[in-house]
Amino acid sequence: MIVNGKPYRTVDWENGELVLIDQPVLPHRFQFWRSADYREAAEAIRTMVVRGAGAIGATAGYAMALATRQAPDADFAPFVSEAAAVLAATRPTAQNLFAGITAVETAIAEAGGGSNPSGAREAALAAARLYADRDALACEAIGRHGSSLLQDGWGIGTHCNAGWLAFVDWGSALSPVYVAHRDGKKLRVFVDETRPRGQGARLTAWELAGEGVDHVVIADNAFGHLASRGEIQAVITGADRIARNGDVANKIGTFGHAVICRHLGIPFYVAFPSSTVDPETGSGKDIPIEERSEDEVRWTVGQNKDGELSRVRTVGPETSARNPAFDITPSELVDALITETGIYPASSDGVGQILAATRN
Amino acid sequence: MIVNGKPYRTVDWENGELVLIDQPVLPHRFQFWRSADYREAAEAIRTMVVRGAGAIGATAGYAMALATRQAPDADFAPFVSEAAAVLAATRPTAQNLFAGITAVETAIAEAGGGSNPSGAREAALAAARLYADRDALACEAIGRHGSSLLQDGWGIGTHCNAGWLAFVDWGSALSPVYVAHRDGKKLRVFVDETRPRGQGARLTAWELAGEGVDHVVIADNAFGHLASRGEIQAVITGADRIARNGDVANKIGTFGHAVICRHLGIPFYVAFPSSTVDPETGSGKDIPIEERSEDEVRWTVGQNKDGELSRVRTVGPETSARNPAFDITPSELVDALITETGIYPASSDGVGQILAATRN
Repeated sequence: MIVNGKPYRTVDWENGELVLIDQPVLPHRFQFWRSADYREAAEAIRTMVVRGAGAIGATAGYAMALATRQAPDADFAPFVSEAAAVLAATRPTAQNLFAGITAVETAIAEAGGGSNPSGAREAALAAARLYADRDALACEAIGRHGSSLLQDGWGIGTHCNAGWLAFVDWGSALSPVYVAHRDGKKLRVFVDETRPRGQGARLTAWELAGEGVDHVVIADNAFGHLASRGEIQAVITGADRIARNGDVANKIGTFGHAVICRHLGIPFYVAFPSSTVDPETGSGKDIPIEERSEDEVRWTVGQNKDGELSRVRTVGPETSARNPAFDITPSELVDALITETGIYPASSDGVGQILAATRN
Repeated sequence: MIVNGKPYRTVDWENGELVLIDQPVLPHRFQFWRSADYREAAEAIRTMVVRGAGAIGATAGYAMALATRQAPDADFAPFVSEAAAVLAATRPTAQNLFAGITAVETAIAEAGGGSNPSGAREAALAAARLYADRDALACEAIGRHGSSLLQDGWGIGTHCNAGWLAFVDWGSALSPVYVAHRDGKKLRVFVDETRPRGQGARLTAWELAGEGVDHVVIADNAFGHLASRGEIQAVITGADRIARNGDVANKIGTFGHAVICRHLGIPFYVAFPSSTVDPETGSGKDIPIEERSEDEVRWTVGQNKDGELSRVRTVGPETSARNPAFDITPSELVDALITETGIYPASSDGVGQILAATRN
């Protein structure tokens, strides 16, 4: 993607450091987070400096590469194994997190692990880079396949941010929109605010503006009304994990949107790189749902009239909140799964085909 | 209702002035708005100093009484008629607004209108008081009927604020909760935040805390997930207008919640005083949907760390928004209508029975 005329990746490696676009301060500030410490990278995932399925996976991969550089030769394997555990514990729902860690762990083992620390360090960084490059390529391919489903003049609904800020580049749900837009199709994207953290209002709207795609932010509550009035012809979301039967874990609110789409007869698509599929998870009920701090519901961050980033509490001081961060959309409510190898039915069969296509 | 040990009404009359609880600053401040000018009252409705079906109706009634006092004897009828038009134009969706205006207009006409200004002034204030008293009594009766539907130990979902802050007293959707709570049933209310204006997070949570009812605020997005996990056994919302066929206009997001409830087999109830029924409106598609300022989506108000009320912009400076304030829930998705005379099916038959019971 291009910002202010310069190309960027959401997650990158520069001079021995992991470099992230600092997402909590968007769209108010465009700045970077840098570190050579894997523990700081784990904290960046946990506090959502970086978020989104693919971006978390690539960050975890580079963080593993950092860990191999921090690990002393004498204690290499235990240090790296501890790092993998610390990184895996940051976000329990996202499948790509585990995929990114595993890709680098496998490369380290193949290079000899603790018996060859310097070779393992080199292999780790190469594997992390390869993981990130593949994520970007997969997302671009998702865009080519998915854009075939979108017609000129359509209103497109999306939820949360599954654009390039959620991946290394391109994005999952937004990649078909970007490809269709470059192909000359006129689309209007209805951007759900995505409370409590506002990834739609803050990130998706910012990305779409950069790409010149027509869009409008709506309260999550307004989706059903606008869809019922014929303003939205299709919905595409991303996914944080796909179960073996096609059930989808994604940002809280996705399930409700899928139910509304089915009720109104609007197609509901889920787009993701095949690394988001977890063959070990049978169905959605096996996916742990992360509950995050209630303060994410109680406090809202934005820019005040003086241009400063400021937090305001929107509930009374004693009011408590619940904050599940994801929900499960059963595969029956999903019209198709879009990946880098094509478009598949949302079912055990379809997921089997995705896994087979990826192995080939 | 009682606040800090003192009884209050949301809308009241004191020493020739209309007195409103100032709702935009809740829960951070508990303060009053007062005026003897009907134009200021109209502005208070428009800017939502007062909001909620019944509270708007009672405010409009008292505002009409103010107008009779401001009207010169020589120009009485045109002045009052202009006031009715100004008040009716403040919020296009709410039925009770028109009911409140009409109740006072009828009393003015019966007292002789412009041919008897002083009698008309007296009649107007009496009618406004009667309208407000009846609203409070109707809401209390809604609570008695509705509480029979709620079982000890249940989780109850609600949307927006349909408690006593939305009426003169008691409320519609929350009245059954308050009655059940006083009857010793343990309920837990899942309070939707209700973006963009946060009436759930700000008002419903504050009311429930005052009444000692267990509750938790959730992002509107979290409703489907928590309902699907068995935490919510019934949903009750209020209504801004009921069409002749039982279709419901209510706060944006209500439709989506009803669709989710039907999908999950959770009963979805709508509670309202029968003054909310508009016999002139055939179905939901005849109800105008108010679109409010996009800045309500773009900016959020809360208390900053210094304890000051502050607005923060949560989107980029150029980002535009859409802000429909209501939606239509078709009667097929509603399990029952709860009014002051009983519980009715959500259908043309049911609405006919409600109207007949009110005429008796």
